[in-house]
Amino acid sequence: MTAQLNARGDVAVLVPAAGAGLRLGPGGPKALRLLAGEPLLVHAIRRIAAAGSVRVIVVAAPAAEVEAVQELLAPVAPVTVVAGGAERQESVALALAAVPAGVDIVLVHDAARALTPPQLIEAVAAAVRAGHPAVIPVLPVVDTIKEVGPGPELEVVLGTVDRAVLRSVQTPQGFRHDVLAAAHATAADSLTDDAGLVEKAGVPVTCVPGSELALKITRPLDLILAEALLHVS
Amino acid sequence: MTAQLNARGDVAVLVPAAGAGLRLGPGGPKALRLLAGEPLLVHAIRRIAAAGSVRVIVVAAPAAEVEAVQELLAPVAPVTVVAGGAERQESVALALAAVPAGVDIVLVHDAARALTPPQLIEAVAAAVRAGHPAVIPVLPVVDTIKEVGPGPELEVVLGTVDRAVLRSVQTPQGFRHDVLAAAHATAADSLTDDAGLVEKAGVPVTCVPGSELALKITRPLDLILAEALLHVS
Repeated sequence: MTAQLNARGDVAVLVPAAGAGLRLGPGGPKALRLLAGEPLLVHAIRRIAAAGSVRVIVVAAPAAEVEAVQELLAPVAPVTVVAGGAERQESVALALAAVPAGVDIVLVHDAARALTPPQLIEAVAAAVRAGHPAVIPVLPVVDTIKEVGPGPELEVVLGTVDRAVLRSVQTPQGFRHDVLAAAHATAADSLTDDAGLVEKAGVPVTCVPGSELALKITRPLDLILAEALLHVS
Repeated sequence: MTAQLNARGDVAVLVPAAGAGLRLGPGGPKALRLLAGEPLLVHAIRRIAAAGSVRVIVVAAPAAEVEAVQELLAPVAPVTVVAGGAERQESVALALAAVPAGVDIVLVHDAARALTPPQLIEAVAAAVRAGHPAVIPVLPVVDTIKEVGPGPELEVVLGTVDRAVLRSVQTPQGFRHDVLAAAHATAADSLTDDAGLVEKAGVPVTCVPGSELALKITRPLDLILAEALLHVS
């Protein structure tokens, strides 16, 4: 039985958080890293649950941690916790299997983007609802970007890349339920990016504007920024 | 007469800060935006002056602001202030003209990267000193990057870019004095990136590791991060 939020919602949000590689420095799984005294996963789930269109949230946890993650999240929101796989892609597929058939829109989110506002979750879902089979939130690339190659000693520049056509990709990435299921059923490699899977299957991927608040909290510097953002937002 | 710091130093640092477009939201020139009560330019100059190899610092200010910028920086470090041009590239050329002939290494820095540590300034200078004619500090690209194009309504993804070969470019960018002078003497376009000018002239550009502290402070979010960094660093 899958726990429900809004029974009339048409959106499921999957949060793969089972990977052993998901670490933010020494000291524990990345998704459980503390931000202002609470794990990143708690911050993320709280904001997902605040998006009115969301009917179910499925978290893929390490097999040994399913009960602990259930207990952690029970006070935050009704969440289904499943055992994840060794690879992120497998965890997404296992979480997807827990989504009821009647939920037409599936978002895949990253717990490390813990401050992603509910508005961005709704914007991605709305674009899928409007007919786009795959939707990603993106930001412009602000830095000058160079392509590099190995030199005799240090890397050397091969060329300057036209950043005007480049975008940084955030999450949640949104999909029509059947499109994501088909992409995972035929996936041959282990890309970390679900939109990349769908793209390889020939499905058009559409961009919507991302949010600076949806930054990925991976480096110690990001935690400092995230703490500061919590105090002003 | 150019004001000197370490008379035995072999490095000049140019800081173009004359552009009208250099703004951080409403309320004033970007380089004069306040961070913890002091303009970004003051933070930047203080860190440049703390790099032991630096002999001269030349700031290009708006023509009407040369005296005001001189007064602002006088208590911080011995700095030469010249009137800049309408374009960033012209300001760099005008600042370069104020560098004494005997200074062999010229760095071009961005006041918006106000927290750049003296160690990074030294690392760039050291690589030029070691024989590399042009040197840029770079960071890996951490986000997934997509190439996009216009769609019927929203942008669509054209492909996923291999970010392993991409680098984000920071400043200071370092050059042999003659190499930068030659690039500016023949510059036909108005690239914002000095390494790009030199690259077009066929000079090899070498990469050294950048610093997360050298982030460009342009968006309101960056100011929040920079304030937080000041308190922990």
